[in-house]
Amino acid sequence: MTTTTHWTKKHIISLEDFSKEEYDTVLNTAASFRDVLKSRTKKVPALQGQVVANMFFEPSTRTRSSFELAAKRLSADILNFAPSSSSLTKGETILDTAKTYLAMGANIMVIRHSHSGVPLNIAQEMDRLKTGVSIFNAGDGLHQHPSQGLLDLFTLTNLLDPKNPRTDLLKRKKIAIVGDIIHSRVARSNINSLLTAGAHLHLAAPPTLLPNLFADTVKSEHKDRLFIHWHLEPALENADFVMTLRLQKERMADYLLPSLREYHQLFGITRDRLLLCNPDVKVLHPGPVNRGVELSSDLMDDERLSLISDQVTSGVAVRMALLYLIGNLKQETNPQILPTV
Amino acid sequence: MTTTTHWTKKHIISLEDFSKEEYDTVLNTAASFRDVLKSRTKKVPALQGQVVANMFFEPSTRTRSSFELAAKRLSADILNFAPSSSSLTKGETILDTAKTYLAMGANIMVIRHSHSGVPLNIAQEMDRLKTGVSIFNAGDGLHQHPSQGLLDLFTLTNLLDPKNPRTDLLKRKKIAIVGDIIHSRVARSNINSLLTAGAHLHLAAPPTLLPNLFADTVKSEHKDRLFIHWHLEPALENADFVMTLRLQKERMADYLLPSLREYHQLFGITRDRLLLCNPDVKVLHPGPVNRGVELSSDLMDDERLSLISDQVTSGVAVRMALLYLIGNLKQETNPQILPTV
Amino acid sequence: MTTTTHWTKKHIISLEDFSKEEYDTVLNTAASFRDVLKSRTKKVPALQGQVVANMFFEPSTRTRSSFELAAKRLSADILNFAPSSSSLTKGETILDTAKTYLAMGANIMVIRHSHSGVPLNIAQEMDRLKTGVSIFNAGDGLHQHPSQGLLDLFTLTNLLDPKNPRTDLLKRKKIAIVGDIIHSRVARSNINSLLTAGAHLHLAAPPTLLPNLFADTVKSEHKDRLFIHWHLEPALENADFVMTLRLQKERMADYLLPSLREYHQLFGITRDRLLLCNPDVKVLHPGPVNRGVELSSDLMDDERLSLISDQVTSGVAVRMALLYLIGNLKQETNPQILPTV
Repeated sequence: MTTTTHWTKKHIISLEDFSKEEYDTVLNTAASFRDVLKSRTKKVPALQGQVVANMFFEPSTRTRSSFELAAKRLSADILNFAPSSSSLTKGETILDTAKTYLAMGANIMVIRHSHSGVPLNIAQEMDRLKTGVSIFNAGDGLHQHPSQGLLDLFTLTNLLDPKNPRTDLLKRKKIAIVGDIIHSRVARSNINSLLTAGAHLHLAAPPTLLPNLFADTVKSEHKDRLFIHWHLEPALENADFVMTLRLQKERMADYLLPSLREYHQLFGITRDRLLLCNPDVKVLHPGPVNRGVELSSDLMDDERLSLISDQVTSGVAVRMALLYLIGNLKQETNPQILPTV
Repeated sequence: MTTTTHWTKKHIISLEDFSKEEYDTVLNTAASFRDVLKSRTKKVPALQGQVVANMFFEPSTRTRSSFELAAKRLSADILNFAPSSSSLTKGETILDTAKTYLAMGANIMVIRHSHSGVPLNIAQEMDRLKTGVSIFNAGDGLHQHPSQGLLDLFTLTNLLDPKNPRTDLLKRKKIAIVGDIIHSRVARSNINSLLTAGAHLHLAAPPTLLPNLFADTVKSEHKDRLFIHWHLEPALENADFVMTLRLQKERMADYLLPSLREYHQLFGITRDRLLLCNPDVKVLHPGPVNRGVELSSDLMDDERLSLISDQVTSGVAVRMALLYLIGNLKQETNPQILPTV
Repeated sequence: MTTTTHWTKKHIISLEDFSKEEYDTVLNTAASFRDVLKSRTKKVPALQGQVVANMFFEPSTRTRSSFELAAKRLSADILNFAPSSSSLTKGETILDTAKTYLAMGANIMVIRHSHSGVPLNIAQEMDRLKTGVSIFNAGDGLHQHPSQGLLDLFTLTNLLDPKNPRTDLLKRKKIAIVGDIIHSRVARSNINSLLTAGAHLHLAAPPTLLPNLFADTVKSEHKDRLFIHWHLEPALENADFVMTLRLQKERMADYLLPSLREYHQLFGITRDRLLLCNPDVKVLHPGPVNRGVELSSDLMDDERLSLISDQVTSGVAVRMALLYLIGNLKQETNPQILPTV
């Protein structure tokens, strides 16, 4: 890896302001860690002595484990914050909790919270106090889930060219995003990254989950590559990739969906429906899947069509890359520290 | 340790199909790790870079901690799956959870589940998918708890000959197993190992907890060494070891037991009752003990009579041995890697 | 660091019997670890191979994380005991749980429990059994929280002379302790250490939270330096430090307090009230703070006045020092092992 990486972000909060160069740096660095994970020892000393605090105010096994493993592979020390047994029940504010971990020596705080904006607020406060700590948004409300967006980007580009995964590979690719888009932080992050990469995005969902206004949320220079559909078929036609989103079953109680069965009939992805797509089409899902709702069960288990496992595997490499990039920012990012396996 | 170990098991699911040679390999390997644990550093790099995922769908402190410490001593990375804060509540199947950990890089999954057969099912599916991952049953429903059976075997044989613990030491020993046998996965695993080792097994319990049919579950070549008693005394007479089992207090609600007090009067082990046994008799219990129910409280604390602490200590060494054996299977088990302390 | 440390305590249970020399040894050792934590690697191999079992029967994030990080920085292996998923629900006694961790190989048990005396009882039993294990009280009921007392002592003396923090620095300093003193194990530990250091202590609280009898609990040679006030002002006048205590909101239900608002009006610390103190006054709080109750919110965030973050930072260094001192006791405490950074 000879590319000189230019990285200036101290926090990972949102993909809204990621540049094409930043995406490519992440993809490039993640490819390097993908190779580390295939090696025998699987570990690099890149974050030795640093403390990564996992602060998951919203429960999660999958994402927390992925961050934990990524941090361990970088030789960081990890502190797990368990909200149930926490002082939050004792009336402390989230910022006070963050300051406590800061005072204990945390260098990076990975924060998941059900309210949009919490990671950003903490990052701003940490900067105001000149603490030097990095905040990593692991999912905030309906806002953003940047590491999911980046691991999806890596999964796609790594499939297209494992030797050199880069945004350019997605130029003019047709990508369908199907499901509960309006409530999905995953969709929001993916829309940012895929449009910047140059893809054509076709969103498909019932109108209650995808209001027309949604198109106004993207940058004007990207508008001509974003298409909104209230039916599945036009989104799937000749698509190169189909991204499905997790359906929060609770939404039904909100009268946004008639029933899970009807949802599956209208928007569920099946083998038959994939015949509309490009013959090499692949399906993604951030997990956990409601089998038989977003995807038919047999499709989910078909390794030739589903990239779900690749997404999980990519997750560890991409999170290693991001922790590495923000964790080594202070002493000038030095690409030579990166292992050459 | 110069014995060449022949080990072919990729998963640890049940002791039903363990051969005498396999038991001896485990005992021999565990003796080696027992010595590692007595050394200053207590750690070997045998599983460096490997990921052990602890997936306890049934709560457990004791067993989970023992596995965790064993994996740490082998330098593995550990992922703890916490079912309460997990995506199971989000509708994912257990197999999906296992596949997620697989995709993250898990090499060994330690699974405890309240339903019999779950670890076997996952192992079969993992093999069908040619994943190379090892499944370690840490207790499944009423079925099996193989590492408990093996640590009990090690505790007994290590007491009889610490230099060379081996199954032959138990040939013709009289061992009583007392208590809630029908609901005990610990009893099932111990019956497999102790009968294969050549011991004479005397089971004692009230008929509701030990139906006569139970004898039909063992191999025909072992039948003449298995005895069923509905009274305690004949089981204890000249016994070399007495294994007690944990009584699930909930059973009483099922009308299987009149009261804990009456149970203790009829089947509780006390100093007095031990006078019926061989003078060197020792008592075992898998823990946690209901003091004054399965065992009198003073007996439990008497280090000359109770092997309960030895069982816990053996647990770490035996689990290290098992993780080592299955974790090093791929690249041909090589006994030289084992430390000679 | 050339001081030869004389340390004989195997357990950390209470500050009631700490001598001036012992306090100074802790301060001195903590200063050394404070420097380790400022170094690049932040880790020393002092407890390599040793197992620290965190047994928090009372939930705590802050203190548990601090102990966990301290143990990791000393290269110990850590076992976390999670009471909710534990065998305590299965009828095991606390002592049985401790014996189980002992048998697994625990060298130090860090115990927090809502009942006063639990750590002492376990320590006595562990000594009676000649186990060699060390018990570290991480807070027991209303009794003691020795590591909090010691980290407060370190915070104060380290502020006064970072090169050589020592008890003498507090001689004749006026320190106010304000709040729910009768229910505070933090206050009890601090009263022990600060009086031994030679400070003048002024306790201030409503009479329900500070009965006159309280003065009888301190050693007679210290009595002339302990003052009890039912009003805030005389305690603050010319004070060098103000220690505030966390108010358990549940107390109000016990009719010990009229309302949180009234409490804040009478005993809450604000910028205005600090004008009564010595101009260099600093405020402490063990956390988590009820903002606007014990302290005004703006005061808490004022780094020139508040030592709250320093307390948390000191916590890691002081706990490293204590784990180091008790963990290296067996083979004769050897100050040369200590890193010279």
